[in-house]
Amino acid sequence: MVRQRTGDKDRQIVDAAISLFLAKGVRSTTIQDISKKAGVAVGTVYLYHKDKAAIVRRVAFAFAERHESFVEEVLSTRRKPQRKLLDYMLGFYDMWQPFSENSIGALELAEAVIKYAPETLEIAKDRFLSAIESILFEAKDTGLAIEKPSADAQWIALSTTAFFPLAGTPSEHPFRKSLGRNELEGLLKWILKRLEG
Amino acid sequence: MVRQRTGDKDRQIVDAAISLFLAKGVRSTTIQDISKKAGVAVGTVYLYHKDKAAIVRRVAFAFAERHESFVEEVLSTRRKPQRKLLDYMLGFYDMWQPFSENSIGALELAEAVIKYAPETLEIAKDRFLSAIESILFEAKDTGLAIEKPSADAQWIALSTTAFFPLAGTPSEHPFRKSLGRNELEGLLKWILKRLEG
Repeated sequence: MVRQRTGDKDRQIVDAAISLFLAKGVRSTTIQDISKKAGVAVGTVYLYHKDKAAIVRRVAFAFAERHESFVEEVLSTRRKPQRKLLDYMLGFYDMWQPFSENSIGALELAEAVIKYAPETLEIAKDRFLSAIESILFEAKDTGLAIEKPSADAQWIALSTTAFFPLAGTPSEHPFRKSLGRNELEGLLKWILKRLEG
Repeated sequence: MVRQRTGDKDRQIVDAAISLFLAKGVRSTTIQDISKKAGVAVGTVYLYHKDKAAIVRRVAFAFAERHESFVEEVLSTRRKPQRKLLDYMLGFYDMWQPFSENSIGALELAEAVIKYAPETLEIAKDRFLSAIESILFEAKDTGLAIEKPSADAQWIALSTTAFFPLAGTPSEHPFRKSLGRNELEGLLKWILKRLEG
């Protein structure tokens, strides 16, 4: 029972921190703000995390855990690999969205993650590639024109890079004005059609 | 004869302005600096351009002219369309390079172009797309798996967007660390292989 409540409090703190960091920035968010929003005592927050940097790390790892659950969910379905690729990459796009905005909150959170939990960016990159690779292995078995799933996964990741910017990317980019979900979906379908031969 | 000398002076002023803008920024560059570097009198610079904004516009249109000459050069060769696509896009990458650096000069010049000559960004985008489209029309004639050259051109442009950032893009981007010329070449070859079927 106690374990259950402990997990709840941890999640409440993480959820509160994420929403405050994104809304008003890491710098302006105090431990008091987080305790208030999470509905726990300030002492409880300190019990879990010694300082704000530790909370940023916890938040970054929470994102990694959500990503992992999502990958496993998509891979375990019985959908066609083409469908899985679309579902996974569009879902990843949705998860990544808060960071593609040029808001102060997103910018500061991205900077804080780069500073305090840089390994989570590598984890995200590796998992992104290996998820695509797993799907392409399946796709190869169903007869798609895939020679080396790991190489093809890298090219697909590279060709969709612009859809996953970190915060702070200038929005005036002439070739990047309308890089929305629809464009990503269109690009993936175009690539899939080429792979279907 | 006078016309010839006039063209020379214009080019000297444009070349001096580009190199100064990129090296020290638009803001710190004075008309005096430009006249000195171009080897012409200050009055001559004012004869051609009423202020720095006008020089920025002239520089932006000079880039558009260079782009146009380059497109025509590539399209007029007797190379295979696949080769033309590589030559054109890698050449465009090289032309775009000064702007992908996070230097003050590149950042300020990009901002000044957005402010004083925004139409040149649209010109660049349209020409980029129509150049790829022309090459794909040729490619279609040689039997490549291209249905609608204009649609295919758009997807190819979109899939390579990340290689043509404006200045100021944060270099810490996890998926963008090593977006070099080699990666662009690899991606284009991968796409071409898919189009060859």
